[in-house]
Amino acid sequence: MLASMNIAFLGLGRMGFLMARNLLRAGFSLSVFNRNRDKAEPLAREGARIASSPAEACRDADVAATMLSDDDATEQIVLGADGLADALPRGAIHMAHSTISTALARRLAAEHQRRGQGYLSVPVFGRPEAAEAKRLIVVPAGPPALIDRCRPLFDAIGRATFVAGPEAWQANAVKVCGNFMIASVLESFAEAYAVLRKAGVEPHLFLDIMNSLFGSPVYANYGAMAAEGRFEPAGFALTLGLKDIRLALDTAREVAAPWPMADVIHARMVQGVAQGQGEMDWCSIAKVAARNAGL
Amino acid sequence: MLASMNIAFLGLGRMGFLMARNLLRAGFSLSVFNRNRDKAEPLAREGARIASSPAEACRDADVAATMLSDDDATEQIVLGADGLADALPRGAIHMAHSTISTALARRLAAEHQRRGQGYLSVPVFGRPEAAEAKRLIVVPAGPPALIDRCRPLFDAIGRATFVAGPEAWQANAVKVCGNFMIASVLESFAEAYAVLRKAGVEPHLFLDIMNSLFGSPVYANYGAMAAEGRFEPAGFALTLGLKDIRLALDTAREVAAPWPMADVIHARMVQGVAQGQGEMDWCSIAKVAARNAGL
Amino acid sequence: MLASMNIAFLGLGRMGFLMARNLLRAGFSLSVFNRNRDKAEPLAREGARIASSPAEACRDADVAATMLSDDDATEQIVLGADGLADALPRGAIHMAHSTISTALARRLAAEHQRRGQGYLSVPVFGRPEAAEAKRLIVVPAGPPALIDRCRPLFDAIGRATFVAGPEAWQANAVKVCGNFMIASVLESFAEAYAVLRKAGVEPHLFLDIMNSLFGSPVYANYGAMAAEGRFEPAGFALTLGLKDIRLALDTAREVAAPWPMADVIHARMVQGVAQGQGEMDWCSIAKVAARNAGL
Amino acid sequence: MLASMNIAFLGLGRMGFLMARNLLRAGFSLSVFNRNRDKAEPLAREGARIASSPAEACRDADVAATMLSDDDATEQIVLGADGLADALPRGAIHMAHSTISTALARRLAAEHQRRGQGYLSVPVFGRPEAAEAKRLIVVPAGPPALIDRCRPLFDAIGRATFVAGPEAWQANAVKVCGNFMIASVLESFAEAYAVLRKAGVEPHLFLDIMNSLFGSPVYANYGAMAAEGRFEPAGFALTLGLKDIRLALDTAREVAAPWPMADVIHARMVQGVAQGQGEMDWCSIAKVAARNAGL
Repeated sequence: MLASMNIAFLGLGRMGFLMARNLLRAGFSLSVFNRNRDKAEPLAREGARIASSPAEACRDADVAATMLSDDDATEQIVLGADGLADALPRGAIHMAHSTISTALARRLAAEHQRRGQGYLSVPVFGRPEAAEAKRLIVVPAGPPALIDRCRPLFDAIGRATFVAGPEAWQANAVKVCGNFMIASVLESFAEAYAVLRKAGVEPHLFLDIMNSLFGSPVYANYGAMAAEGRFEPAGFALTLGLKDIRLALDTAREVAAPWPMADVIHARMVQGVAQGQGEMDWCSIAKVAARNAGL
Repeated sequence: MLASMNIAFLGLGRMGFLMARNLLRAGFSLSVFNRNRDKAEPLAREGARIASSPAEACRDADVAATMLSDDDATEQIVLGADGLADALPRGAIHMAHSTISTALARRLAAEHQRRGQGYLSVPVFGRPEAAEAKRLIVVPAGPPALIDRCRPLFDAIGRATFVAGPEAWQANAVKVCGNFMIASVLESFAEAYAVLRKAGVEPHLFLDIMNSLFGSPVYANYGAMAAEGRFEPAGFALTLGLKDIRLALDTAREVAAPWPMADVIHARMVQGVAQGQGEMDWCSIAKVAARNAGL
Repeated sequence: MLASMNIAFLGLGRMGFLMARNLLRAGFSLSVFNRNRDKAEPLAREGARIASSPAEACRDADVAATMLSDDDATEQIVLGADGLADALPRGAIHMAHSTISTALARRLAAEHQRRGQGYLSVPVFGRPEAAEAKRLIVVPAGPPALIDRCRPLFDAIGRATFVAGPEAWQANAVKVCGNFMIASVLESFAEAYAVLRKAGVEPHLFLDIMNSLFGSPVYANYGAMAAEGRFEPAGFALTLGLKDIRLALDTAREVAAPWPMADVIHARMVQGVAQGQGEMDWCSIAKVAARNAGL
Repeated sequence: MLASMNIAFLGLGRMGFLMARNLLRAGFSLSVFNRNRDKAEPLAREGARIASSPAEACRDADVAATMLSDDDATEQIVLGADGLADALPRGAIHMAHSTISTALARRLAAEHQRRGQGYLSVPVFGRPEAAEAKRLIVVPAGPPALIDRCRPLFDAIGRATFVAGPEAWQANAVKVCGNFMIASVLESFAEAYAVLRKAGVEPHLFLDIMNSLFGSPVYANYGAMAAEGRFEPAGFALTLGLKDIRLALDTAREVAAPWPMADVIHARMVQGVAQGQGEMDWCSIAKVAARNAGL
């Protein structure tokens, strides 16, 4: 029965490719689109149909999933010429996995509703390795009935699903808050390492203690990268981290909540980018904190 | 042989009592002092000798351990009348477990050196349950030879020992940075919960995701307390949290490092205390963040 | 010769009305538009022609001035149906006095260029009393030749003109920075008063000293309002102050500069609005600072 | 009658020398002390008696004024060997002009009271030129009767006197808040200039507008120094500015008030000092802000 669900998957970047492949391997019928068609070829060899436009990919879809880099790309693929929105059948669902603004999520919800389509925001947490291993954390929000229809898809890509609420944008709010929590760990390490280095204490020593105290892979991973100064090649570039913290701050503007730590992180990342670290990993803010401490 | 080491233990608060008991149970000969003698009685029943002054406790000690509430209490017990410093034999070691300032640690090191005594700062990480279960993280700093002599004591109270450096105050720098890392989690949750509540998302939903993402007991514990508003009775009072973040800021002043997130946390805690939450748990800064968001 | 210049003036709010009237009294031929036509009547009695749409007002204009509340209003009046842009003759100039975003200024420059029209951003500094007395500070930016053509207009509304640069949006950058400087005085007073009140010192005493030290009417004016708690009716509402600080932060995003004090002011204003002070004067952030200090 | 008042003046730095000379020229009988005796010689030529210790200077004094660099120097001169406190006659007054902590002011008040002496904190606002021209702003606090007795002295050094309150430390609270207000202008210019330079706008252009807007010599003076990058020789060194903002933060700790802008300024100054600008003028924080923006 699952196999009878037609899925369109638009956006085959590092994450999107792995998620699409898991859907395919779970038995869904897949039509894929990517601006650079080369990335789609390996999926074709596993049975996906390659479409030459978003519209073509979506024409017979029950569900169209998007995993695009940002608001602009999403807007263009969904609402642009030959886009998803005008091609998706009435009654079908658009499920946006991308990290987009709460504002755009609300706009998409409205645009799809006008067309008699459903819309869900379904951001995910996890790095590419998690995507590959079907270990993503999946956070859908939107009308409960639509979420229920898409559950088999969530199960095919993730290890756990948490419903954020009945309005799609709420999932995006959760996503930006989650990213903030991670960024906050990065910034905390950055600042503590700077203080400790000025006190003659090795970051690694501190990291060992923090690992013992927190017991978290997030701390172990980023704490080590920052302690060793492993910032290139970037797992997640600082420019992207900056983009994400701006999405967070934009959400806070909308709901009227002060967010002082997000402000600190934002200022730090802006400095990093302004000083030429945009393409380094986002945990390279540790370099910025060190520099500001005169190291 | 261990049993032949004489230990003085000064300060039998919640943590000190449990640590002293573990030393006793590990076979060390213990002389204890506490301002309120009642707290010492249970230890006497297990074989400790109760002293009526710090000086009396320390007179025959090989090692004198202190676990006192703050700088003032430590100064008085160590350097005051009938104090530790003037009674401890030459060649013996003072091992300060308390969370004290790096400045006081440097002063204690000098005072003991003048008297031909050794000094180690040996702060610990862990809550009372960890102290009870010999599961503390022990962070000594000071002359390596002294640290070696005290290792059996560290093993008797903790699950892991991390040497911070050759100067005692470095351990205190590590301790205040570690506390900062925890406080930073509290503040991050406080702010994210406020944003999410204004977005109509339940803190518990977010907490579940964060637990899935971070997999850390620190997140699980404080995240739940903050989500449920369980702030009384305090596990660790906000006034104490504020004291600790001030120690951190004082250390940063000494080493000349900016510390913007510690500044944010400090401002938050000052507000909490100023608005009457001093006796609540320190994770009650979540209430402050909520209030500032108009909740 | 001046009188032979046809001016369209769109937006007759408190500031716009007074500016338009000064243009009229300086001898310019004026066609005015305001959504609420009543506000235009007094100008009609002094010789202005009342237009029933932005387009009608601009049809024969040499220069079209706009003084609208924000980006949205400006976009609609300029680019909406029956808007300024499609009606203004080729070769004529649109001069936007409103406090708008640098992003919108760039977009307007492009839109007008496409239509063969000129565009200047010409924000002003000063309260209504200054507008009434032709005492505004006028800050034009854009192509120098256009600025030269408009100088007689600047002279008719202000006491001094400062050219910000050859690109229109630069004037908007200057404007948001100037507003930031004023907001920064408000926030400084707010925080210092809170500290001093907790120290038992009267804000007024401090204000007298600051007046003696700074000798600035801005300090005298806002310092007194904040000291006396005179927040209603608002001279400039907190919601508007918040809007302005957001424009500032948006500009900083564009040019990639950290702006920590603007972040602090933003957080403060968000709190004020979230706690119900949106309609009070923006210097009511002093109330927020006092509250956060437990007063 | 004034001439019959014996004044001791301790501390003949740049400010102290000029203040002492004005007292002398106003007809007071003066006994002066300075660590470096050379600085006292010009005063001797105008009739002052040079003492070889604080004690000697104070032995017959009705009022002993101190103008010393910081808490440590003040403590030593007042409470050290051959110090002011043990020599000053009962009933005489110690008047401390130095910028010291509120904590030390409270301690001095207690120490003098114990000795039957009076104590006033009498910080002043103004640069050396103002001191020379008797144009200081004088801010005494302490018992009203003592203030009245000292009024002729205030009049001899300043242009205006503002009584801060009945407790001496309140004047120090006012002084640190006043310094904060100035530092806040420096930081605001630093940040706005950085944003504007990245927007291609000349700081001087902005300064002209701010001068037109604020009309304050403080803005004109520091705004110009920062715009021109005139940071050496320092009028007031960044290390001293940092010391002062720390005094401010210490006062805020005592009275339990959050102070976010002072935190931002503190972090900025720490960075400046850590990056080697300690001996530059404190308005060189503009260089730090520029650097952090990638300039």
